Amino acid sequence: MHKEKLLMTPGPTMVPPSVLETLGRQIIHHRTKEFRNIFKDLNDSLKYIFQTQNHILTFSSSGTGAMESVIANLFSAGDKVVVASIGVFGDRFAKIAEAFGLNVDLISVEWGKAVDPQLIKQKLDDDKQNEIKAVIVTHNETSTGVTNDIKAVGRIVSKTNKLFIIDAISSIGGIDIQADNWGIDVIVGSSQKALMTPPGLAFVSVSPKAWEAHKNSKLPKFYWNYSAYRKGLEQNMPDAPYTPAVTLMIAQNQAINLIKEEGLQNIFERHKRLAFATQAGAEALGLKLFPDKAVSSYIITAIKAPEGIDTEEVRKIMNQKYDIMVTGGQQHLKGKIIRIGHCGYVDRFSLIKVFTAMEYALKESGYPVELGAGVSAVEKALY
Amino acid sequence: MHKEKLLMTPGPTMVPPSVLETLGRQIIHHRTKEFRNIFKDLNDSLKYIFQTQNHILTFSSSGTGAMESVIANLFSAGDKVVVASIGVFGDRFAKIAEAFGLNVDLISVEWGKAVDPQLIKQKLDDDKQNEIKAVIVTHNETSTGVTNDIKAVGRIVSKTNKLFIIDAISSIGGIDIQADNWGIDVIVGSSQKALMTPPGLAFVSVSPKAWEAHKNSKLPKFYWNYSAYRKGLEQNMPDAPYTPAVTLMIAQNQAINLIKEEGLQNIFERHKRLAFATQAGAEALGLKLFPDKAVSSYIITAIKAPEGIDTEEVRKIMNQKYDIMVTGGQQHLKGKIIRIGHCGYVDRFSLIKVFTAMEYALKESGYPVELGAGVSAVEKALY
Repeated sequence: MHKEKLLMTPGPTMVPPSVLETLGRQIIHHRTKEFRNIFKDLNDSLKYIFQTQNHILTFSSSGTGAMESVIANLFSAGDKVVVASIGVFGDRFAKIAEAFGLNVDLISVEWGKAVDPQLIKQKLDDDKQNEIKAVIVTHNETSTGVTNDIKAVGRIVSKTNKLFIIDAISSIGGIDIQADNWGIDVIVGSSQKALMTPPGLAFVSVSPKAWEAHKNSKLPKFYWNYSAYRKGLEQNMPDAPYTPAVTLMIAQNQAINLIKEEGLQNIFERHKRLAFATQAGAEALGLKLFPDKAVSSYIITAIKAPEGIDTEEVRKIMNQKYDIMVTGGQQHLKGKIIRIGHCGYVDRFSLIKVFTAMEYALKESGYPVELGAGVSAVEKALY
Repeated sequence: MHKEKLLMTPGPTMVPPSVLETLGRQIIHHRTKEFRNIFKDLNDSLKYIFQTQNHILTFSSSGTGAMESVIANLFSAGDKVVVASIGVFGDRFAKIAEAFGLNVDLISVEWGKAVDPQLIKQKLDDDKQNEIKAVIVTHNETSTGVTNDIKAVGRIVSKTNKLFIIDAISSIGGIDIQADNWGIDVIVGSSQKALMTPPGLAFVSVSPKAWEAHKNSKLPKFYWNYSAYRKGLEQNMPDAPYTPAVTLMIAQNQAINLIKEEGLQNIFERHKRLAFATQAGAEALGLKLFPDKAVSSYIITAIKAPEGIDTEEVRKIMNQKYDIMVTGGQQHLKGKIIRIGHCGYVDRFSLIKVFTAMEYALKESGYPVELGAGVSAVEKALY
């Protein structure tokens, strides 16, 4: 018997039953009091999750679309931005900026490391002509399982006139990130990671400083134009400029109800404990983390392939034989790492399942495993 | 007792039960054989619906986003395009083109009329310098309830080197439109109208001639970049460049299964009969169509307010007292027309309900109604 796949990937993540229930309901129209009430709730709740007083704009799009919206709305061709990339998604933000004709000063960090805030400080100190308009950093890089210290970078950037822009697509609602306290002008998030809703929605929080930059932006935009979304939000009851993804928004609102019930701080703590348990389980199996432990993500753990083992094979066995999906490495890391997502609707039992399947799969791939060693370590860590 | 609202709006439209059932299922990952099989099915089925051999690109976005994608992918700033607008959505395409710096030659047709193909022919004949790159026309304009004769315009445009671009967001799968036979290079469609799926997906069919234009386009794009989507489609099993709206795509595939079961020609015929029945019902109540009958849409019927009656009031009674949502007029037509959608998952009984509620609401608004007159006419027309 094959069961429903357990997704322990960086996203999409499992959707809680009460959220699935909303998805199966008949559609309602977006220009109704009923929907606008939900939209209002959603907007207020997103502020709680992004830890901000700023407007948060909701787009019907993937996270990548919202990243594009940031570039199109806040800049003009030729503008200089510093992008600190620690993996695939940092590189993507740089590519988007380049596609729009920005002058990208790329800090390319070795995969598996976090960005050193001092590198960013140096760039800003060297900017005697005040040419740099923004600093763009990934909060959590799923491709390497590393989380950047955004608070530390914020201490540096918020002292300047630069915009501080964060891709928190994979981390928002899972790892602490405080838009207002840390001086973050723009945070990009999406529905299908810690926010426990299917993909198709993306969110952008926009600070007053970012709204000023928006006024001066000359890049072409219409669907992404922040002004239209702001106008919708500033009505008595919020409205969307173009037919929104009604169903996903209702589902997202329900998922955030669950988040509010558990409490954001408790959720951050849960993800941290799940991460530490994953690290302990891996260690008990003699496996090494891919990143430095100090910067290893709380929502996804990247583990190095043991000598002579192809993680693609391990991953395939886990998926095909045991119905548990984890992820492998991207680009040059293919076959070299295995990435276990523990993000969103995940508890100790999810992790116990993962380690059970991973122990079997490692054993079947020829790696010597004392069955139960990883599982016991996880169980102990989560007691 | 209030029942589930019956949406007889131009969109979103009602979602069939078997489609809702797929929405309520647990999420699956997009990089799996299971999803790729569905995506392959969806792509093949979309070709059936768009009546084309061309690639059809699927975006996680509203229809407006896909309209923007057309401009960003096929043009450069300064390019001249003819936009024939017969209402709100034609105007929107012109605005998007203008936002991207195109030189828009706008044919603005009086609301309630279709565009005269000869007006377009004239523009092209006058284009001695061969400056016009494209002709952009709305297939079905929901704001006025008018359908353009795209086949006739196609006969003119396909003889030239211009791109022929159609916004069929509200009509695709509901009113006949033949991409390949009518020489249409680009058709934009979306999920939430005749395709009976919640909003959040948009589709663009792209002809070889449009791919050529894409190569020369200098406008900035990343999320919308057609090349990335094409690359995904041309793999052995199709893949999406960015996390797609998995849930909506599975739902859309199921909705198209229903379409294939009924047959596209039968669906076109059903919408036509529903339209004629709506016209007959209105006539029996002494109401006049807003557009000329000859161009009145098969998926939405716009009816003029009788002397002294505010259609906003009629609409509100229908909605609040009888749980049936129809739409009013936009902009200067507010209060002046009522628009009944009969698009997608709609049958004779839906229309009988609408006329029952509309007769009550008209009566309660002070319009003399012989209760049953409209309903009888509808019933007869649909026997």
